[in-house]
Amino acid sequence: MDINEQRLWNRINELGRVGVDVNGGLTRLSFTDEERAAKQLVRKYMIDAGLQIREDEIGNLFGKLPGNNPNAKTVLIGSHVDTVLNGGMFDGALGVLIGIEVLQTLREKGLTTENSVEVVAFTDEEGTRFSTGMIGSKAFTGQLTSDDLTNNFDKQGISIAEAMTSQGYSPNKLETVKVEPESIKCFLEVHIEQGKILESNSVAVGSVTGIVGVRWLRVKLQGEAGHAGTTPMPLRRDPLAAAAEMITVVENLAKVQEGTVATVGQLSVNPGGVNIIPSDVEFTIDLRDLSDELLEQLLVGISSGVDSICSKRGITYTIEELHKLSGVSCSNEIKEEINTSIEKQGLEVIELPSGAGHDAMVMATFTETGMIFLRTKDGISHRPEEWADKEDVSMGAQVLYDTVLNLA
Amino acid sequence: MDINEQRLWNRINELGRVGVDVNGGLTRLSFTDEERAAKQLVRKYMIDAGLQIREDEIGNLFGKLPGNNPNAKTVLIGSHVDTVLNGGMFDGALGVLIGIEVLQTLREKGLTTENSVEVVAFTDEEGTRFSTGMIGSKAFTGQLTSDDLTNNFDKQGISIAEAMTSQGYSPNKLETVKVEPESIKCFLEVHIEQGKILESNSVAVGSVTGIVGVRWLRVKLQGEAGHAGTTPMPLRRDPLAAAAEMITVVENLAKVQEGTVATVGQLSVNPGGVNIIPSDVEFTIDLRDLSDELLEQLLVGISSGVDSICSKRGITYTIEELHKLSGVSCSNEIKEEINTSIEKQGLEVIELPSGAGHDAMVMATFTETGMIFLRTKDGISHRPEEWADKEDVSMGAQVLYDTVLNLA
Repeated sequence: MDINEQRLWNRINELGRVGVDVNGGLTRLSFTDEERAAKQLVRKYMIDAGLQIREDEIGNLFGKLPGNNPNAKTVLIGSHVDTVLNGGMFDGALGVLIGIEVLQTLREKGLTTENSVEVVAFTDEEGTRFSTGMIGSKAFTGQLTSDDLTNNFDKQGISIAEAMTSQGYSPNKLETVKVEPESIKCFLEVHIEQGKILESNSVAVGSVTGIVGVRWLRVKLQGEAGHAGTTPMPLRRDPLAAAAEMITVVENLAKVQEGTVATVGQLSVNPGGVNIIPSDVEFTIDLRDLSDELLEQLLVGISSGVDSICSKRGITYTIEELHKLSGVSCSNEIKEEINTSIEKQGLEVIELPSGAGHDAMVMATFTETGMIFLRTKDGISHRPEEWADKEDVSMGAQVLYDTVLNLA
Repeated sequence: MDINEQRLWNRINELGRVGVDVNGGLTRLSFTDEERAAKQLVRKYMIDAGLQIREDEIGNLFGKLPGNNPNAKTVLIGSHVDTVLNGGMFDGALGVLIGIEVLQTLREKGLTTENSVEVVAFTDEEGTRFSTGMIGSKAFTGQLTSDDLTNNFDKQGISIAEAMTSQGYSPNKLETVKVEPESIKCFLEVHIEQGKILESNSVAVGSVTGIVGVRWLRVKLQGEAGHAGTTPMPLRRDPLAAAAEMITVVENLAKVQEGTVATVGQLSVNPGGVNIIPSDVEFTIDLRDLSDELLEQLLVGISSGVDSICSKRGITYTIEELHKLSGVSCSNEIKEEINTSIEKQGLEVIELPSGAGHDAMVMATFTETGMIFLRTKDGISHRPEEWADKEDVSMGAQVLYDTVLNLA
């Protein structure tokens, strides 16, 4: 291995002790002392790595290794160091620390690149504090407005702008955060998978094909309440029996195509008596796939399934779209580079979509983007138990190192 | 018609104004002033009808028309005058008032019977106050113990015994309430159907075959929570998808046999996030059929369905029996008499089970029992909108009159 495995692992563990909360997890919300302390430590690592440091007015922290050609575009590596409430120590931090490790290794080996290579810790990817995330990468790519800063509030009623000011940033200098797409060659992010695909394939590192699009639906069914004892089956208009059929339809539609997922995560029943046929039922559907076209087909399929079940059962319904996010694809060229780097380690190449959002999702709308996933124990994330093995972390860093060498 | 239709209808409406609550329904809980007022009015009707009146120590109120043979057994007719919270004016009261009407008609016509005929208003059939019902009929048949009186409490912590004392009854004279089975020839009850079978058949009066047995189950499923985006379908252990399949299985099992009903009325999902695969799901099943044997077969079928769905999906489960009540059959002989009386009115004979419990359920374990159902508007009961048409009430009274004449 080229990279320094122990140094990287030590940093992950050291940064993993910043912002420990009363429940034993990490809580580093944006523009708080905990997040600041995390960035201070990252700044120290960047200094140790000999990088040129700058911080922009939204709090994105950069460390740069200049290339041989000052006119060449920058290869940007990054992720974030904020966490959810009671989160783990790998989500985000891993990508930043691996980026620093890759740059430090390049510098220590005296290797120079044509392009500058820069690592970034983006501000507030998780969205936990203001219920809107990817603040740093959106500002960096010009997708955040002044209104966004003043119209989004935390639970104490503090706006993003106010929170920025409290940490010494200038909301009125938001424009200075934005860079020109021409200055960036590509963006690379290493992240824990937060799922079980790599684990179930016994592979440490995966090659991400894209970030899935998302649709959230709420289905409301109105039937007719009745006495459980005195209403014969043929006379019922039971919305829960209808919902049960629909959940099976949704599951079966999602199973047709590999990579599609569909989840019914919320369901409520009224009035909810043991001996009362429900009058109305509400449930949500979370639908994801890389292909927006396929998502739209799935919506049609679900809608038609709901309609025919309802019409058979005398149930009325509404379907509401709560949330819609288009999927983005990673760059094929970069993916091939990543695959080559994975193969170089003697590993099987597993290509997989990202089911969750990342800064890379924002960056992919701005520049060529590549993403590397690391195997995650039991698929768990956003909890203190979130875990990636040291060997896997090293492997991920090495794959990124080789990829950067080929791209920069 | 032999019976006095208008008198009966007037009484139903007059008694239907006793205990009107703030929500416009009737609330006459046992051993309250409202229930007492209702019984006072019933007592007045019994006096008008020329009946011999007695009240026992649990508050059961009797009006008797002595037969020609003092040694012959009594034909008992009855129901109850207590209501649920915010209930309607037909459930219970109808059976008592029709009984009085039948006896008053017999007396006015100067008809005498071999057997004495007696009408009873049983105390607390609904069980609303003490969460245990059929107090009067259970005491009458010797199925209520002193412990039952002291161990069941209302929401204010008042025991049945204390409530009895407050209304002038003597809990320590419970034994005197019980009668010998040899003194009773049969029990007859007229009641609203509380379902839609008669309505959907366009028939005013129905002949009850028995009162269904009941099983309440609680099914608990434990799967594995996961991120809706990062967990591929084949790697899921989703307890809600499992529950959906089970609900369909339960419904299909119930549909095989006419008369069987199965209801999933409660269902809860944890943790209940739109983008979180549930970790555990709980739901109830209410199963009813006249045949205990069939209920046991259904339990086996459900249990085996749950087991195979869980084993296929990697879900663990428990099934708990919350409540069990055996079904009882009405007397075939009395049912035939009722059918004859229905035919005499030129009506189609519809035989149907009772899906809800009644005093007749207790009485059927004690004596030959027959039951007559009246068409209920939209199947609604236990609500202020509960309704039976005047013509249907008259028809029910006439059918009971003819039945009593044949039996007594």
